[in-house]
Amino acid sequence: MTDPCPAPPVPPALVTLAERLADASGPVIRNYFRTPVAVDDKADSSPVTIADREAERAIRAIIEAERPDDGIYGEEFGTKNLDAEWVWVIDPIDGTKSFITGRPIFGTLIALLHRGRPVLGVIDQPIVGDRWLGVEGRPTLFNGQPARVRACAGGLAAATLGTTSPDLFPGSDMDGFRRVAAAAKTAVYGGDCYSYGLLAAGYYDLVVESGLKLYDFAALVPVVTGAGGLMTDWDGGALNADSTGRVVAAGDALTHREALAALAG
Amino acid sequence: MTDPCPAPPVPPALVTLAERLADASGPVIRNYFRTPVAVDDKADSSPVTIADREAERAIRAIIEAERPDDGIYGEEFGTKNLDAEWVWVIDPIDGTKSFITGRPIFGTLIALLHRGRPVLGVIDQPIVGDRWLGVEGRPTLFNGQPARVRACAGGLAAATLGTTSPDLFPGSDMDGFRRVAAAAKTAVYGGDCYSYGLLAAGYYDLVVESGLKLYDFAALVPVVTGAGGLMTDWDGGALNADSTGRVVAAGDALTHREALAALAG
Repeated sequence: MTDPCPAPPVPPALVTLAERLADASGPVIRNYFRTPVAVDDKADSSPVTIADREAERAIRAIIEAERPDDGIYGEEFGTKNLDAEWVWVIDPIDGTKSFITGRPIFGTLIALLHRGRPVLGVIDQPIVGDRWLGVEGRPTLFNGQPARVRACAGGLAAATLGTTSPDLFPGSDMDGFRRVAAAAKTAVYGGDCYSYGLLAAGYYDLVVESGLKLYDFAALVPVVTGAGGLMTDWDGGALNADSTGRVVAAGDALTHREALAALAG
Repeated sequence: MTDPCPAPPVPPALVTLAERLADASGPVIRNYFRTPVAVDDKADSSPVTIADREAERAIRAIIEAERPDDGIYGEEFGTKNLDAEWVWVIDPIDGTKSFITGRPIFGTLIALLHRGRPVLGVIDQPIVGDRWLGVEGRPTLFNGQPARVRACAGGLAAATLGTTSPDLFPGSDMDGFRRVAAAAKTAVYGGDCYSYGLLAAGYYDLVVESGLKLYDFAALVPVVTGAGGLMTDWDGGALNADSTGRVVAAGDALTHREALAALAG
């Protein structure tokens, strides 16, 4: 479902809508944060709670009422109209393990795909009140102010690397991660989407993950690239609806290039 | 400098003082959070910033003015009067890597030792505004309300395990950590002191770390035990000024016992 042609500018009404979706999910999540919610294990052993489900319902209800022809790809309630020109991709709580352990470093992810390509992304952290807004062709905003990645003149050897967990690299991807982590200056663990937002704001140099789903990474791409960063798959290819979920985000080109080389072995 | 005799109750004036110390460090840290502070590498390669140093200075100034005979053991500015009856143990920013990556999951740790034994602990997260207060003989308070660990009826196999980083286990301690992580239900990474506070509030079942210094763990012991948890070294011994920095905190006795067995191999 990807398209090699340039996308049209994202209509301003859709940008406003994306922020309204995050405005709707935030109160739902705050209501359940640090309360004794039941945790169910999904088929892939990842946890889910009523907060994930209700937050996604709140988001979908608005999309379905206002943009009934758009597609929806949500983590908890599946897909609809994936052949539509515009598809909303939703992860109501990216970082459910952080949510259920009471850590305010998870985020609500709302992406908009144009023919398979992520052209808009919101990362919303409703406890701290952090929000990133990335729109193709515009500078990324972090809490309403332009965000910018930082330079990392020393490349990978000088880089602060983030990743959610060393347990999340399937199969031989673990070897690639070990190589990049060994070559980086330091590794920081935990954070899910929050690490990418903080990279876009200049606090990390590199984030490397694998095994991600479309709803885990689609919103991050416009946020990182709109802040001057690079975000690709492990082979340097653009991320879109067909990607395999191996992602590298970097604040500058040298770090990105050296990370790709380390991942390739 | 430990003493086998029971400690006297912690004087209420010292509890008030401990909270005032955290009140003093919080604004210093907030002032530097998410600003481009220089990061220096200490002899042990751990990072330090002006925020760490100024926060510790603010705390020490109050102790030195009001309790000039007490001892002080600070991460950044060393020790003084360690033979005093009361010794304050200070880590101005526990989780400096989280601080410098813009993540509000670090904490200021203020402990009070009575003849080497931790009898009071404050964990203060000045961005989110979370504070834990543990005082021997009293229930732990989390943001002013009594905190309580949760039961984990299934023991280690049902436990959510927290640890800051798998890179922080020196030598063969890594083997012990691998055994306990493999036996737990799930592992969550990142968090430093915050994980122990959240265990005391019932959101984690187990935290296992090693290589900690006295200022990393002293404040955590009264917080965890005052919430009904157990916190010992990897051999089940009480933690005090002579401990080696291998710590296990658990919300219930079965999980604690099974974690010790897994660590022992």
